[in-house]
Amino acid sequence: MTEHTYKTIELTGSSAESSDQAIQNAIAKASETIKNLHWFEVVETRGYIEQGGVKYWQVTIKVGFRIED
Amino acid sequence: MTEHTYKTIELTGSSAESSDQAIQNAIAKASETIKNLHWFEVVETRGYIEQGGVKYWQVTIKVGFRIED
Amino acid sequence: MTEHTYKTIELTGSSAESSDQAIQNAIAKASETIKNLHWFEVVETRGYIEQGGVKYWQVTIKVGFRIED
Amino acid sequence: MTEHTYKTIELTGSSAESSDQAIQNAIAKASETIKNLHWFEVVETRGYIEQGGVKYWQVTIKVGFRIED
Amino acid sequence: MTEHTYKTIELTGSSAESSDQAIQNAIAKASETIKNLHWFEVVETRGYIEQGGVKYWQVTIKVGFRIED
Amino acid sequence: MTEHTYKTIELTGSSAESSDQAIQNAIAKASETIKNLHWFEVVETRGYIEQGGVKYWQVTIKVGFRIED
Amino acid sequence: MTEHTYKTIELTGSSAESSDQAIQNAIAKASETIKNLHWFEVVETRGYIEQGGVKYWQVTIKVGFRIED
Amino acid sequence: MTEHTYKTIELTGSSAESSDQAIQNAIAKASETIKNLHWFEVVETRGYIEQGGVKYWQVTIKVGFRIED
Amino acid sequence: MTEHTYKTIELTGSSAESSDQAIQNAIAKASETIKNLHWFEVVETRGYIEQGGVKYWQVTIKVGFRIED
Amino acid sequence: MTEHTYKTIELTGSSAESSDQAIQNAIAKASETIKNLHWFEVVETRGYIEQGGVKYWQVTIKVGFRIED
Amino acid sequence: MTEHTYKTIELTGSSAESSDQAIQNAIAKASETIKNLHWFEVVETRGYIEQGGVKYWQVTIKVGFRIED
Amino acid sequence: MTEHTYKTIELTGSSAESSDQAIQNAIAKASETIKNLHWFEVVETRGYIEQGGVKYWQVTIKVGFRIED
Repeated sequence: MTEHTYKTIELTGSSAESSDQAIQNAIAKASETIKNLHWFEVVETRGYIEQGGVKYWQVTIKVGFRIED
Repeated sequence: MTEHTYKTIELTGSSAESSDQAIQNAIAKASETIKNLHWFEVVETRGYIEQGGVKYWQVTIKVGFRIED
Repeated sequence: MTEHTYKTIELTGSSAESSDQAIQNAIAKASETIKNLHWFEVVETRGYIEQGGVKYWQVTIKVGFRIED
Repeated sequence: MTEHTYKTIELTGSSAESSDQAIQNAIAKASETIKNLHWFEVVETRGYIEQGGVKYWQVTIKVGFRIED
Repeated sequence: MTEHTYKTIELTGSSAESSDQAIQNAIAKASETIKNLHWFEVVETRGYIEQGGVKYWQVTIKVGFRIED
Repeated sequence: MTEHTYKTIELTGSSAESSDQAIQNAIAKASETIKNLHWFEVVETRGYIEQGGVKYWQVTIKVGFRIED
Repeated sequence: MTEHTYKTIELTGSSAESSDQAIQNAIAKASETIKNLHWFEVVETRGYIEQGGVKYWQVTIKVGFRIED
Repeated sequence: MTEHTYKTIELTGSSAESSDQAIQNAIAKASETIKNLHWFEVVETRGYIEQGGVKYWQVTIKVGFRIED
Repeated sequence: MTEHTYKTIELTGSSAESSDQAIQNAIAKASETIKNLHWFEVVETRGYIEQGGVKYWQVTIKVGFRIED
Repeated sequence: MTEHTYKTIELTGSSAESSDQAIQNAIAKASETIKNLHWFEVVETRGYIEQGGVKYWQVTIKVGFRIED
Repeated sequence: MTEHTYKTIELTGSSAESSDQAIQNAIAKASETIKNLHWFEVVETRGYIEQGGVKYWQVTIKVGFRIED
Repeated sequence: MTEHTYKTIELTGSSAESSDQAIQNAIAKASETIKNLHWFEVVETRGYIEQGGVKYWQVTIKVGFRIED
């Protein structure tokens, strides 16, 4: 049985819709170029404000993926 | 007037739907066996990824409840 | 080009609906009296529990705004 | 000589009198049902305010006790 | 039922007497100008030393109050 | 597919031999009474010193297990 | 001898020149409207980048001042 | 006007009486051998438990003192 | 004398044997593709549990390496 | 309007001159190979000492850049 | 019964062999000049890398000892 | 090749001039009595304010030095 190594990168996704969707957008973008995305962890939730409401949700996540053997 | 004591436990709820629902699932599960659930606090938001999207939201919360006198 | 100064205040919004809406409520309330609200950052997500579910989401945020020159 | 295992639980004690007494109350309550309480560590000191003074001191502690062999 | 917004401010109270009294002093001072003070949370406990003893206890707290609707 | 809930407890294991063994001892003790132990995470590594060496390694871990449906 | 109360506010100063100057700018701005500024503490140092260099240093500080008796 | 340098050391005081007294005991002990003790800051509050109550309060503080020119 | 720039990446190594070996495995894997690996720092030690023992040690480290001039 | 994704990397810049210059050096080096550098945030400020003075300032920063669509 | 005062110092031990041995080396070195060493706590685990492996484990610990009455 | 032990002490340097100079002053003062000063790490940057500007920069650093064999 193998002993894998994982790499973690830090991404910030943004969405006009919701904090969950900002996470989904970051993961969708990362999966265009990285295989084996495995898990994520929220680091920080921020956002930009316009006219008394959230204009952009910006969620920073760590995303882990398995390094190919 | 009484001076209550509260106990805090740490739970991780999971949901395929949303981060808020993962919290609701953990609380619903805990309320099956614990009375007097009072408040929660988010400790960590993580999740598993499949096919470029969040497969499971996993939110770890502290849940506080009053110890019976 | 000017070098602005920003002030950050800490607010806790509450909502019966969702954690995102608790943030929106705090920002809407603050924008009644403060101009130039610029960004927010989540400090803590808590909530009150009733009958095995979340009765109130309570999200504490830092909100930054530009001080008028 | 034996190698013991300890368990830590998190409690919040409250007192109208002082922060130290809130800790004593939590420990007294816990000792009604748990043997071998060994040490505590303060996690957070909070309180409720009424009429310009502290109505209730609320101190959250971790309490450690030895698991019976 | 309403969804209130709370504001948190950070104060440092000082007392020659005790750490608890430093908190009481900060809350008493704040309640002269702010209505609806609701809760506090200790951020930091410091003090000045003279002649081998504590001359002033200085406790920094966050104090929360409800914003009027 | 089900959405499980996990509970996390905090244990301190001790060992005269090594820091890894202190973790193993805590897990072995916990598994005597809890089924479905799933993962652990190190919170703190401490120890007692005698005669210029480590007498006891004491490692505090969080241990997670699945709550039975 | 009196027991003062201090209030702490959080400001972000910006400067094209240096991180120290960003702090000076925030303090100069605050002193236009607040008397008795007493101390500051750096919370975070950030900045915006343009053309391979720092365009704006942005330093967030806590600033403490004595509340008038 | 001179630009002093301060050194900070970490001490744990213990007291059977109160958490404040544990701090006083540590400062009194340190002042037997160190001149110019200036300020302290609480790092951690712990204690030992016997018979359902606090046997010893143990408070760890950082203590700062001016280095002689 | 030159002023080097270093990059830090975050890796999680796993090992069935020990926590130290999990770190060695992550470094060995990284050194297959990155030159000039210089130092590491432990971020988190976790593991998976099977049959009352540690099945896999999983240690997350930051690894720093010099960027080629 | 688009919803961008940002990536954050961690760099340590060094300078014999000043802490600000160590940051500038890291950003200058990164901009040789990465387009769209957007912001930085200081993680840690360290340095090497020789002959009673700072020989090298070493500042670790997170640098964020926009991922190309 | 006496109320002791403890002092804590911070040491970094190094070892080519293992992280546990780096701790042992620091404690052995300290015990050459300090009596009454009592406990330690790990602050940070780092190391230097050469040829795809750990050349030196470097573990920073806090070590506590009782101050003589 | 030897396995050195290092000790870390915590100092606060002050300077009317700049935050970097406050660090230099602390290191210069320490090097009067300690040999083998090796590295420093910034713990906290604070300062005193007078007349709308920084009167004293006060930077707390950890300084590490090799213990003589």
